[in-house]
Amino acid sequence: MNAPADTSFSRSWTTLRDEKARRLAVVAPWIEDGVLPRARIVDALEALIRPGDRVALEGDNQKQADFLSRSLAQVDPTKVSGIHLLISSISRPEHLTLFERGIAHKVDFAFAGPQSLRVAQLLEDGQLEVGAIHTYVELYARMFVDLAPRVALLCADKADRHGNLYTGPNTEDTPTIAEAAAFRHGIVIVQVNEIVDELPRVDIPGSWVDVVVEADRPFAIEPLFTRDPRHIGDLQVLTAMLAIRGIYEAYGVTSLNHGIGFDTAAIELILPTYGAELGLKGKICRNWTLNPHPTLIPAIESGWVESVHCFGSEVGMEAYIAARPDVFFTGRDGSLRSNRVLCQLAGQYGVDLFIGSTLQIDADANSSTVTRGRLAGFGGAPNMGHDPRGRRHASEAWLKLLKAEGGPAAASSGVARGRKLVVQLAETYKKGGEPTFVDELDAVSVGAKSGMPIAPVMIYGDDVSHVVTEEGIAYLHKAQGVEERRAALAAVAGVTPIGLRAEPARTAELRRRGIVAYPEDLGIRRGQAKRTLLAARSIDDLVEWSGGLYSPPARFRSW
Amino acid sequence: MNAPADTSFSRSWTTLRDEKARRLAVVAPWIEDGVLPRARIVDALEALIRPGDRVALEGDNQKQADFLSRSLAQVDPTKVSGIHLLISSISRPEHLTLFERGIAHKVDFAFAGPQSLRVAQLLEDGQLEVGAIHTYVELYARMFVDLAPRVALLCADKADRHGNLYTGPNTEDTPTIAEAAAFRHGIVIVQVNEIVDELPRVDIPGSWVDVVVEADRPFAIEPLFTRDPRHIGDLQVLTAMLAIRGIYEAYGVTSLNHGIGFDTAAIELILPTYGAELGLKGKICRNWTLNPHPTLIPAIESGWVESVHCFGSEVGMEAYIAARPDVFFTGRDGSLRSNRVLCQLAGQYGVDLFIGSTLQIDADANSSTVTRGRLAGFGGAPNMGHDPRGRRHASEAWLKLLKAEGGPAAASSGVARGRKLVVQLAETYKKGGEPTFVDELDAVSVGAKSGMPIAPVMIYGDDVSHVVTEEGIAYLHKAQGVEERRAALAAVAGVTPIGLRAEPARTAELRRRGIVAYPEDLGIRRGQAKRTLLAARSIDDLVEWSGGLYSPPARFRSW
Repeated sequence: MNAPADTSFSRSWTTLRDEKARRLAVVAPWIEDGVLPRARIVDALEALIRPGDRVALEGDNQKQADFLSRSLAQVDPTKVSGIHLLISSISRPEHLTLFERGIAHKVDFAFAGPQSLRVAQLLEDGQLEVGAIHTYVELYARMFVDLAPRVALLCADKADRHGNLYTGPNTEDTPTIAEAAAFRHGIVIVQVNEIVDELPRVDIPGSWVDVVVEADRPFAIEPLFTRDPRHIGDLQVLTAMLAIRGIYEAYGVTSLNHGIGFDTAAIELILPTYGAELGLKGKICRNWTLNPHPTLIPAIESGWVESVHCFGSEVGMEAYIAARPDVFFTGRDGSLRSNRVLCQLAGQYGVDLFIGSTLQIDADANSSTVTRGRLAGFGGAPNMGHDPRGRRHASEAWLKLLKAEGGPAAASSGVARGRKLVVQLAETYKKGGEPTFVDELDAVSVGAKSGMPIAPVMIYGDDVSHVVTEEGIAYLHKAQGVEERRAALAAVAGVTPIGLRAEPARTAELRRRGIVAYPEDLGIRRGQAKRTLLAARSIDDLVEWSGGLYSPPARFRSW
Repeated sequence: MNAPADTSFSRSWTTLRDEKARRLAVVAPWIEDGVLPRARIVDALEALIRPGDRVALEGDNQKQADFLSRSLAQVDPTKVSGIHLLISSISRPEHLTLFERGIAHKVDFAFAGPQSLRVAQLLEDGQLEVGAIHTYVELYARMFVDLAPRVALLCADKADRHGNLYTGPNTEDTPTIAEAAAFRHGIVIVQVNEIVDELPRVDIPGSWVDVVVEADRPFAIEPLFTRDPRHIGDLQVLTAMLAIRGIYEAYGVTSLNHGIGFDTAAIELILPTYGAELGLKGKICRNWTLNPHPTLIPAIESGWVESVHCFGSEVGMEAYIAARPDVFFTGRDGSLRSNRVLCQLAGQYGVDLFIGSTLQIDADANSSTVTRGRLAGFGGAPNMGHDPRGRRHASEAWLKLLKAEGGPAAASSGVARGRKLVVQLAETYKKGGEPTFVDELDAVSVGAKSGMPIAPVMIYGDDVSHVVTEEGIAYLHKAQGVEERRAALAAVAGVTPIGLRAEPARTAELRRRGIVAYPEDLGIRRGQAKRTLLAARSIDDLVEWSGGLYSPPARFRSW
C-alpha cells in the first residue's frame, strides 16, 4: 500500500457545513416563530451571502422569486459583491440591476427572452460574464456536479412554521434546486405568499429549508402558455391538418410534447373536428407532456386526452385542472403537481414526438429562435427537440423511423435503432416579410459577436425528422444523403432563398418516393383549411368548453 | 365555435381518485396508529391491487422492497392476477414467482442480471410478456406518460406515524416512483425497517404516502459497487495509465462518471500515485457522478475529489461518507442523500466523460454486456454512455471534440458543436480466452431469439469517442469516415478477429496522425504498469486509507 500522506488527516472535511452554520447563527436571533420577519430580509441576505458565492435564484419562464430578487438588488455591494448567479431565466429588470450594482458578476442561465438586449449590453460593457447558456435541465444537472449553489433563493405558495412548503400547482423547479442546495450544505431561503398552520399538502419537507420569509405580495407569474385562438389563421389550420394527417396518423403518434406556438395550438384545436372526422380519437395524442395549455381544453373535453404531465401550471387553469384529476397529475389537495425536471425527462425519453415552431431554418434544417442582437438562450426545447440516443425502449412510432447504424455498410452487423420524431413547424415567410428559410442562421453571427464558443442553435438539423410548412411536409429522415435531404427541405421552403433552389423534376421524384408530401398527396383540400375547423375560435369559446372552469387572465378577456 | 358534445359533461373525471378511495376504505379499519400491522400485508395487497393493474415494485440494482415482493408472491391468484409489473431490476427469485403463479403477466423493466436466464425461460413458455426493456430513466419517464402506476410498492429506512419517510443514504428511486404514483391517484405502499416518533430528516412527505408497514427484516441491499483491489492486474493498471495520460490529461477532464468494472477502479486507485506524478491533481477528476466506490477513498483522502453525487449508496461506506460532507451530498442528519434520477441527469448532461468496461465490441464500436442466452437489459449505462444531443453548454473538454454539423459540406453554415467523451475500456481477450472484439455482437442473436424489435445494444458505436485496450487508444472521433474509424479500432484490438484485420502501414499512419496511440506514443513505459502503482492493493488498505471509517461487508474481509 502507498501510505496515506499525513495531510489527509489534518484537513477539515466539514468546511461547507461549518460555514453554513456560522452564517445561519447570525440570523437565528431574528427568527420569530419559525419565520424571518419581512423587514429583516435585506439584512439576512447580507449575512447569508458572501462575495463570490454561487447563488441560485429561482425564476423560470413562469414563476419568479421576485420578493427575494428585489431584496437582493437592495443589498449593500460593499458587503455582497461579485456573486455567481445561477438562474433559469433572466426575466425581470432587477435581475440585471444586480450586475449594474456589482452585486453579481457571473451568470449561468438558460433563457433571457425579455431581458436579452440588456444582457447583451452588460456583456459588452464587461459588467456581466456569461459562464454558459444551457437548456434548463443541463443547468440543474450541473448543480449536482460543478455548480452546487451556496445559497438558493426560492419561492412557494405557503409554508408552515416548521419550514414545510406547499408550492401548489407551480411546483416547477423548486424541489430540484432545493435538493441541490440543501444536501450540499447550501442555505435554502424561501419566500412564500402565506404562512399557515397546516399545509394542504407538503411539496418540500421542512428539513430541506433554512429560512422562510413571507413576501410583500404573491410571487410573480406569467401566463406564457395561453394562445388566443383569434390569432390563428387559415394557413396555420392547413399546417395543422398536414401534421395530423401526414405525421400523427401516419406514424401512430400516441405520446407527445407540443411547443407553445400558434401552429401547435391549431393542432390542439382541430383534434375534435378534423381529427375526429379522420376517426383518430383514441388512436393518436393520448399522453401529453406539456403545460396546461388552454387550447387543449376542447380535446380534453372531447375525450382525446388520457394524461397530461406538466413542467409548470398556467394562470387561470387552476379550477379546470382540479376538476379533471383523471387527466392531470394532482395532489391530495386537488391541485396540480408540476415538476420541470421530471416533465423534461418524460418529454425527452417518454414520448415519441416533439413538435415546435421556429423562426429560422437553414438549408440543413438547423433552426433557432435567436434573432439579430438578442442573446435569448434556449429554455427547454433542446432537451426535447433531439433524438435521445440513450433511448432503448421501442414503440410503434419510434420503430417506423428505424435505421441501420453506420449507414448501409454497417447494416450487416445487425445493429439498428428507431428514432424520435422531431418536427419543426414554420411558415415559409414570417409576418413582416422576412423569409424563415435562410442560408445562415442569425444565431451564427449573434454567437460570434457575443464571444460564444459555438453558435446558439436551438434544434440541430440532424436531429430533425420532419419539417412542415404551408407548402407541405419534408420527410427528412427518409432522405438518402445530404444532397437529397436539402432537396426535400427546399421543396417545402416556398419562395425563400432556400426554396428557390428546388428543382421541379427533383421535387416530383421526391413526392413519388414519399420523401416530400404536398397537401394533395395526403388527400387534404386546401379549401377545407379554414378557421371554422377550430373547435374554439376565441378565449370565450375555451371558457365555454371548460364549463366555466377556465378563468383567463384579464388581458385575454374581451368581455 | 364547435359546441361541446353533451357527453363531455356527463362522464366522470374522477374515476382514478374514486377507485383509490374505494380500495383504501377496505384497509382503513386495519390501520393501527398510522401503520398497517405486518400480519395484514397479504390481505391488504389483495384489497389494494386489482387484476391487470400496473404495479411499480421498487427494486433497483441495490435496495429491494423485498418484504413487499415476498408478500405479493403470497397473494391468492384468483384475487390478484395478470398485473403489469414495472420494475427497475428483476433481481430476486420471488419477482419471477409472481409470473409462475399468474399474479403478474407483463413486465416493463431495465435490468435482469441475476434472473436473466429464468426471464428467458418464462418468456419462451408464454408466462411472461415483456413490454419493453429500458435504461433506468426511461422507465421512470414513462411513469409520467403512459405507464403511471396504479400501485407503488416502495421501501424506506424509517417512517413516522404520519407516513413521512426517511430513506437514509439509499434514497435512490423512491421519491421518483412515489411522485409518479401519488400524484396520479395511485396507491403508495411503503415497507420500512422501523417506525419512529421523529425522523432524522424527511426524504418523502407523508402526504404522498398511503400505507406504511414495518417489514419483518431490514430491506435487502447489495454491495454491487465494491471492487476488491486484489483482483486488479498489471494489464488493468496499464489501461488505466493510458486513460489518464491519453484522455483525462489530454482533454482536461474535470467532471466524469465511472462504470463499475475493475478497469475504472484501477484508474481511481492510481490517481494518487501515477496521476500525482504527472502533476494532475486539481486539474482532472474533480467532480464525480457515481456511487460511493470504496476504491475512490485514496483519491478523496489525497485531495483529488471536490464532489461526488450518487445514484445510491454502498454498503459499508456510511460512516466514511458521513465524515466527509465536503465531498458527498449529505443531509442534516449527516447521512448521504442519493437520487438515481438526478444523478443520471447529472451524469448525462453535467459531466464531460463517461467511461465504462464492456464485454463485446464489434467493428463499428457497438458494444454490449449481453452474452448468449441472457436477456440482461441495460441499467443506467445507455443514458450516460451517449453523446447528449440536447447539450448546449460548452466546456474545455467538450469543445476539444468540436465538429461541424453535416460533415465538411455543411461547415460553411457556421453550425458546429462539441461532444461528450464516451470511452469504452476493454481487454482484447476476456478471461476464458474469448475475444472481446467480434464480428457480430451476441446481442444481435439474443435480441432476435427473444423477439425483440431491435438488438439490445448497450452503447452504440457512433456515440463512442474512444476505445482503450491494453494495446492502446483509438481516438475514433478523429477518424474521417467509416473505413478509417474501423482501421483505428482494429489497431487496438490485438489478435482478435477484428484486430487481425489491422494493416501495419495503415496503423503507423494513424499513429502519426494521432488517431491511434500506443503506450510508447504517450510516454508510458509498459514496465511501470504494475500493481505496485495502486494506492491500495486490498480491501484492508482501503479501510486503512479511510482511517477505519470504511466498514466492508463480511464477504470482502480477509481478516
